[in-house]
Amino acid sequence: MYKLLNIDGKAKRGEFHTTHGVIQTPVFMNVGTAAAIKGAVSTKDLEDVKCQVELSNTYHLHLRPGDEVIKKLGGLHQFMVWDKPILTDSGGFQVFSLTSLRKIKEEGVYFSSHIDGKKIFMGPEESMQIQSNLGSTIAMAFDECPPYPATREYMKSSVDRTTRWLERCKVELNRLNKLEDTINPNQLLFGINQGGTYEDMRIEHAKVISELDLPGYAIGGLAVGESHSEMYRILEAVVPHLPQEKPTYLMGVGTPENILEAVDRGVDFFDCVYPTRNGRHGHVYINQGKLNLFNAKFQLDDRPIEEGCQCPACQSYSRAYIRHLLKAKEMLGMRLCVLHNLYFYNTMMEEIREAIANNRYQEYKQAKIDGFNVKV
Amino acid sequence: MYKLLNIDGKAKRGEFHTTHGVIQTPVFMNVGTAAAIKGAVSTKDLEDVKCQVELSNTYHLHLRPGDEVIKKLGGLHQFMVWDKPILTDSGGFQVFSLTSLRKIKEEGVYFSSHIDGKKIFMGPEESMQIQSNLGSTIAMAFDECPPYPATREYMKSSVDRTTRWLERCKVELNRLNKLEDTINPNQLLFGINQGGTYEDMRIEHAKVISELDLPGYAIGGLAVGESHSEMYRILEAVVPHLPQEKPTYLMGVGTPENILEAVDRGVDFFDCVYPTRNGRHGHVYINQGKLNLFNAKFQLDDRPIEEGCQCPACQSYSRAYIRHLLKAKEMLGMRLCVLHNLYFYNTMMEEIREAIANNRYQEYKQAKIDGFNVKV
Repeated sequence: MYKLLNIDGKAKRGEFHTTHGVIQTPVFMNVGTAAAIKGAVSTKDLEDVKCQVELSNTYHLHLRPGDEVIKKLGGLHQFMVWDKPILTDSGGFQVFSLTSLRKIKEEGVYFSSHIDGKKIFMGPEESMQIQSNLGSTIAMAFDECPPYPATREYMKSSVDRTTRWLERCKVELNRLNKLEDTINPNQLLFGINQGGTYEDMRIEHAKVISELDLPGYAIGGLAVGESHSEMYRILEAVVPHLPQEKPTYLMGVGTPENILEAVDRGVDFFDCVYPTRNGRHGHVYINQGKLNLFNAKFQLDDRPIEEGCQCPACQSYSRAYIRHLLKAKEMLGMRLCVLHNLYFYNTMMEEIREAIANNRYQEYKQAKIDGFNVKV
Repeated sequence: MYKLLNIDGKAKRGEFHTTHGVIQTPVFMNVGTAAAIKGAVSTKDLEDVKCQVELSNTYHLHLRPGDEVIKKLGGLHQFMVWDKPILTDSGGFQVFSLTSLRKIKEEGVYFSSHIDGKKIFMGPEESMQIQSNLGSTIAMAFDECPPYPATREYMKSSVDRTTRWLERCKVELNRLNKLEDTINPNQLLFGINQGGTYEDMRIEHAKVISELDLPGYAIGGLAVGESHSEMYRILEAVVPHLPQEKPTYLMGVGTPENILEAVDRGVDFFDCVYPTRNGRHGHVYINQGKLNLFNAKFQLDDRPIEEGCQCPACQSYSRAYIRHLLKAKEMLGMRLCVLHNLYFYNTMMEEIREAIANNRYQEYKQAKIDGFNVKV
């Protein structure tokens, strides 16, 4: 299912075959929380910005429009009109973010909807049932994402529960995939490694979950407040204990530099809201760092966001025009910035894949990072 | 410049030749107030929805980003990246809407910016200078749009001032078009007929302004609160007194039915915010009237907004998906509705042109209006 095409240092160049097509890795998954990419970007647009995998959020879709509604409409692929891979998260991260609204038990989590306060229960089985209704290509295990920092004691009990939950997820998704009316009988389950910044717990947990022989493994609970160097230290410790012949997904990461460093440590799946969220605020990525298009210096700047960029924004519109749109609160400004940023991320992943294939990843990575730090 | 291709009853099928290309009439101009169509729609998208003429607002662009800025960037066509015709209004309508913020004098209007309260003066010369900086294809005369209802006495003095202002506009635009650094030396001026619902004043004014031999004439001051039947009565009275061999533009109108009726009375240019504004509120046009996509009955409706519609929304997405987007406040929902509505209007204009060309306008109009009133 995962084919390792080349290794350059620890950086992996692979292909992940799914029922919705082949994913070339390393890959950045484009986040469409509520079955849409924020910034008025459609699945048609995703093709134009070279998106390979769309990511949607189980928690949001469970509340609205409801996973049962999406199942009746043929599943998330048909609902969004996207025939390429979709990954759904487990809902856990959102549920655990509602600190004051939830209660964790062995069976799962009791919480209140952020929309209408309605009491909801979600455990491993419920998460799998919702994701099965959505019919995503890849379902994520229901885990606890512990806060940062957390004590060793809390972390130990949390990680152990996450392991027990993972076993329940596996049993439940196997059952669901065999049901006659299932949307995607080939739905895949990725396990999630936890353990915070405790290397020994991370490694121990990685070993335990690797034995479940799942099609892929994620590293969760990073990028939650720890420093970048701590994150890189944990990656260096844990990635070697996850199966190399399977995809490794670093959840919720991150800046272009974070991605370049994580690829260098053997990660091949990423997702992050940065390109969409920053785009909506007029912050756009270029090879010399990031521009804030609200800045007055762009008022008469008739250049595209980045010279030579082939994205739908840069192919037509100037910094001056986009700045005007943002200032005038015209939605088109956000849309153009989001399209550019997604294109930038997806294109960087393309470059990363090519660099690894040609055994020049170190050189590429350093040049790219140096570029980001040039003052423009 | 205007070529009358056919007349069917009073309905005119024409071609208006401009420096930015030929406009097939009757035409609906798509409103992009601040140099962008609200709802995250770009000029690239306008091509996909068959837009012929984009309309922008002088008042808004004067305040932000400033017409001098747009001039420095090569004019509005270059700024928005749109090489087809653009019509700019005079700013008058917006200024006169700021009732409490403005003061009318013979020389022009003193008012305060709605953005920062800054004191601004705008008269015929200033309006022409701003529109000349924008470099639109068609500039509109600076007129007073009197409130409805208005006394005969007020209307008389207002219309007389509008005539004097029109003469000043003509002189000033002629001067500006000859300047060496002008953006569009072929910029056209349309005069505006006023007179409220007083037929005699409308007719008298139409005769006076027709003598100025301008390339086109608009009917202003309608759709400001009077009934539809009053509006049609005024059109029947005044259109015969405007030159038939020139375009007649009914400003700010209207519903599909209004347009069908006005075409039947000899009008050939239209503009209105309805398709964009309604789209942003989830109200979409179909041949059987209008749908409110927020309605619960669309929750599981997997049909496109309108079966057979070739617009970018209907080509891919379902009512159920768009309803979800609107409920979840995803901008994409607004964008898809706006694209559909503009396509609907522009396609109706295409049908209107074909019906007139084939001398079957009455039949077409009646069938179309009957369709709108079918209960679905």
